[in-house]
Amino acid sequence: MEKVGTYKFMAEPFKADVKGNLFMSALGNYMLNAADFQSAERNFGYLDLRESNKAWVLSRFVIDISEMPKSYEHFHISTWVESAMRFFTRRNWSIQGDGGKQYGYGCSVWAMIDLETRQPADIFAIGNGIMKEYVDEEHTVPIEPPSRVRMNEKEAKLVREIDTVYNDIDINGHVNSVRYIEHALDILPLEWHSNNFIRRLEVAYVAEAHFGDKLRFYEDRQSEDEICYRISALQPDGKEQECCRIKILVKSK
Amino acid sequence: MEKVGTYKFMAEPFKADVKGNLFMSALGNYMLNAADFQSAERNFGYLDLRESNKAWVLSRFVIDISEMPKSYEHFHISTWVESAMRFFTRRNWSIQGDGGKQYGYGCSVWAMIDLETRQPADIFAIGNGIMKEYVDEEHTVPIEPPSRVRMNEKEAKLVREIDTVYNDIDINGHVNSVRYIEHALDILPLEWHSNNFIRRLEVAYVAEAHFGDKLRFYEDRQSEDEICYRISALQPDGKEQECCRIKILVKSK
Repeated sequence: MEKVGTYKFMAEPFKADVKGNLFMSALGNYMLNAADFQSAERNFGYLDLRESNKAWVLSRFVIDISEMPKSYEHFHISTWVESAMRFFTRRNWSIQGDGGKQYGYGCSVWAMIDLETRQPADIFAIGNGIMKEYVDEEHTVPIEPPSRVRMNEKEAKLVREIDTVYNDIDINGHVNSVRYIEHALDILPLEWHSNNFIRRLEVAYVAEAHFGDKLRFYEDRQSEDEICYRISALQPDGKEQECCRIKILVKSK
Repeated sequence: MEKVGTYKFMAEPFKADVKGNLFMSALGNYMLNAADFQSAERNFGYLDLRESNKAWVLSRFVIDISEMPKSYEHFHISTWVESAMRFFTRRNWSIQGDGGKQYGYGCSVWAMIDLETRQPADIFAIGNGIMKEYVDEEHTVPIEPPSRVRMNEKEAKLVREIDTVYNDIDINGHVNSVRYIEHALDILPLEWHSNNFIRRLEVAYVAEAHFGDKLRFYEDRQSEDEICYRISALQPDGKEQECCRIKILVKSK
């Protein structure tokens, strides 16, 4: 089987924003679907890991695009593993339209954890190191790798606080990775989205939020072109735990 | 071309709830996608209508299921037009798994409006009455037709108020039909969803909400098995406009 998996998608009309562009969170969801399909077909997917009580944990997620698919446009997402070390693996994506149009790329870092101990687990213990067969080291993507999302904590303002809700929670009982993106982009008003294009979105995941937590969003506008969010979970006992940081780089229109 | 259109879907892993069941709002979205594909292939779809400045408006939407697809399950949705009158058309759905498993059915009522006047438009004026060729009158679904969603206004309590956000708004500038379902079901806590199964969901759409409105959810628990919501838009001028009513019928587990 080839190292790269390629999957067809269509920008669903009900997943398009007021400009007719696919929502960033919907693109992120398709990319994670492609990753899931690619790994499942090569026997290191979610269901394979669950047999030995392990799970993939997304640590960094970058979406870097020059254009967003419009509603009804068909596109395909290719994805592959660029590197695998004992505790981390890097996965890339390429998002292409019909006729070779390049919408953009993605890259990510994943860890594997033991679901019982919640500790990092040895990636090469899965299927006798089967992932090694699919590492495609020469196959990089022409975008910046994940960076540190630095917040100016003095400048950061609490701009949104919401309850976690039923539709936030995935099968693992955690807030779904893509919902942080959706909720963060909902801080920015419709008019902002009409006048700006998010050319790069970067998420650094830190810890999981659970049902019953409140999600707090702290915003740091570092410049016109760069906005950072720190999202934390205010737990029922009053403890506040950082969940993730999101950096968006913007191109004004 | 056949009257019935059938489309394959997979219950996407990131669209499954804590029990591994596809979210009701995701199923609703797939059903509306199927409707969109079926009508587009027969030249009375969204893009065909837009050429003459018309649009489909969903008036009633019923999802009636005995079981929900689990994450990773493949299923197909068949959809067809059961009747077409001058100002209304009825559309049905059948949701089946591999091997003929019947998850459930859906039915709906649609109007066509002129986008300029916002008035009802003549459905048979599209493509010289092309819809008539695809009406399948004998092909009903074995579920109750849409009913009136009656609220006991004295008992109804305001249980949620949220701002409209970027991800709520579709290409027409309105709150997406499926988001009302998602937001209403988010009123019920995770534990409620773990202990109950929504066997029927019915929406009666009244008017559109826009960005800048606040959405207010009024709840009337008519019995353990029946919960009704009235959702209204609190507009920036302070006027409150009813948007839709949702009735859910519940099977306790």
